[in-house]
Amino acid sequence: MSSSRDTAVTVIGLGPMGRALAAAFLAAGVRTTVWNRTPGKDRDLVAAGAVAAGTAEEAVGASPLTVICLVNYDATDSVLRQESVTAALKGRTVVNLSADIPERARDTGRWADEHGIGYLDGAIMTPTPSIGTPAGVFLFSGPEALHAEHRTVLGALGGTHTHLGEEIGRAAAYDIALLDVFWTSMAGYVHALAVARAEGISPTELAPFAQGIGAILPPLFQEWAEDVESGGYSGEGNPITSGVSTMAHVVHASEAHGIEANVMRAIEGLARRTVALGHGTEGFSRVAEVLGRR
Amino acid sequence: MSSSRDTAVTVIGLGPMGRALAAAFLAAGVRTTVWNRTPGKDRDLVAAGAVAAGTAEEAVGASPLTVICLVNYDATDSVLRQESVTAALKGRTVVNLSADIPERARDTGRWADEHGIGYLDGAIMTPTPSIGTPAGVFLFSGPEALHAEHRTVLGALGGTHTHLGEEIGRAAAYDIALLDVFWTSMAGYVHALAVARAEGISPTELAPFAQGIGAILPPLFQEWAEDVESGGYSGEGNPITSGVSTMAHVVHASEAHGIEANVMRAIEGLARRTVALGHGTEGFSRVAEVLGRR
Ligand SMILES: NC(=O)c1ccc[n+]([C@@H]2O[C@H](COP(=O)([O-])OP(=O)(O)OC[C@H]3O[C@@H](n4cnc5c(N)ncnc54)[C@H](OP(=O)(O)O)[C@@H]3O)[C@@H](O)[C@H]2O)c1
Ligand SMILES: NC(=O)c1ccc[n+]([C@@H]2O[C@H](COP(=O)([O-])OP(=O)(O)OC[C@H]3O[C@@H](n4cnc5c(N)ncnc54)[C@H](OP(=O)(O)O)[C@@H]3O)[C@@H](O)[C@H]2O)c1
Repeated sequence: MSSSRDTAVTVIGLGPMGRALAAAFLAAGVRTTVWNRTPGKDRDLVAAGAVAAGTAEEAVGASPLTVICLVNYDATDSVLRQESVTAALKGRTVVNLSADIPERARDTGRWADEHGIGYLDGAIMTPTPSIGTPAGVFLFSGPEALHAEHRTVLGALGGTHTHLGEEIGRAAAYDIALLDVFWTSMAGYVHALAVARAEGISPTELAPFAQGIGAILPPLFQEWAEDVESGGYSGEGNPITSGVSTMAHVVHASEAHGIEANVMRAIEGLARRTVALGHGTEGFSRVAEVLGRR
Repeated sequence: MSSSRDTAVTVIGLGPMGRALAAAFLAAGVRTTVWNRTPGKDRDLVAAGAVAAGTAEEAVGASPLTVICLVNYDATDSVLRQESVTAALKGRTVVNLSADIPERARDTGRWADEHGIGYLDGAIMTPTPSIGTPAGVFLFSGPEALHAEHRTVLGALGGTHTHLGEEIGRAAAYDIALLDVFWTSMAGYVHALAVARAEGISPTELAPFAQGIGAILPPLFQEWAEDVESGGYSGEGNPITSGVSTMAHVVHASEAHGIEANVMRAIEGLARRTVALGHGTEGFSRVAEVLGRR
């Protein structure tokens, strides 16, 4: 990307994700300044051509664009809202790729406005090895003009970039929903690995079949989204009563091996509540509506 | 499949899955006899050439092979263990594609042995539209010779058939673990749909991004299986402390909208317990080991 060559970026936060972001900028030929609260995490990056800043203030002053990627917004506040750092950011842009709830993104947007700082919120939906490759998925929200202005340099991160709209909390809202899918799925998987082991099935014996389950999810995601959007909730192919029965089997088989099944117990409880509300012949997708009811 | 033409099968259970199985046998030219506890569910199948049996005893007597697919093994027992039905099955084979825990499969295996009935246990890992197509996934366990004998007629169901071994409970053990992955993932998804809606994101807006999450799961399934198998549990790219923070965000954002988050609360609890046991810098895959500990 030759258009990245004259540009510069600062990366704040050198955890696994921050290091991956900085490495992708460097690989694309972007002049990259880095800083992290705990020193020493910049070694490989400096060897690859990054400029190590001595302070956060110095770091944000080195580039028109700062990308920050910390554990959460308590952490980003503790760095960005220091008086000297806020002052150094005036007239520059911050892209916050840390995860947190939408309200924190909105609050940071207000702070940025008050201090003459350009602000885009963002979220990364793929693991560190995806950064700088076509597999990366990045979401952004905030001023369209700002996104357009920095699109080229952010393009060095590779993958798919989606601007979700001007409402600054939108990327975080998607992030929360998608992390919900991610962590719940992975929790189901590690629980399955434990139960399988107790039944004498090794993790790598189970994995290919679990990948088969992974393959049936995407079309069901689309189908169930249409159910929820239309209020259809068809259980024609798989009524929730049938599902409840298999959920109970998972709980029973787990606990028989001394493996707690609190996650599946909570899921079974939701499904049984939905049946009790008179939706037994409908699909499990109806649970979305039961959850959303106040 | 011309080799199926001279064969015959009985299908007991005409719920959504039983009907799909019978339809696939018919489509492959297998002579198919059907029976269901509640009458009237065989109409379309009879129109397509199925033979309607008047009783379960008559049904199992019509074919060398009976495929039974009911809600669970309480249901299959209530049909198969009637004296007249058990007697009619002598010298024939039953393939039980209903879901239940491994112990029930083992118990049914013992019952079959005692009554001179050939018995294979099985599980279906894909939804009804996959039946009769290359997308179907079928697991079997029990005598290898019996599986070989009926492989051709079962092949009419399409898809991938795996014989997991002679231990009769093995298919049910895989089924439990894979249903754990399936229902936990789908529960995460419907919860995400509810949270997204509360944030003004429609189900079909979220779905393509959820499909993106679906796409990152299979490689992680393999990676985490290797972690658990080797005891490696590397959190290099994504430490569990980072995950705990985002789990807390999901709980917080959900409950702020009045949407209960009991499933994610249980997951966060497991992750925090794992951190408290001293594994904070490791990956979430370590939870499998914590769960498996007695
Ligand atoms: N890793 C992934 O696969 C992945 C994928 C998608 C999104 N994300 C998101 O990316 C963000 C960063 O994740 P990560 O994987 O790099 O690991 P992380 O553990 O979430 O974050 C580590 C970073 O946060 C900093 N930090 C923590 N508390 C701080 C505080 N109070 N003040 C200043 N800095 C603080 C750490 O600095 P120290 O070194 O000084 O502790 C380090 O730079 C998170 O929001 C995560 O959800 C990660
Ligand atoms: N549907 C799917 O997508 C899917 C996918 C994979 C595996 N499976 C498994 O396939 C099996 C069948 O599922 P399904 O989708 O067809 O729906 P289901 O609701 O699980 O099962 C319905 C069948 O069970 C029968 N049944 C229920 N209680 C009975 C009892 N006490 N005595 C006799 N029969 C009884 C029903 O008969 P009546 O009509 O008389 O009530 C009907 O034939 C289940 O174990 C399920 O887990 C289903």
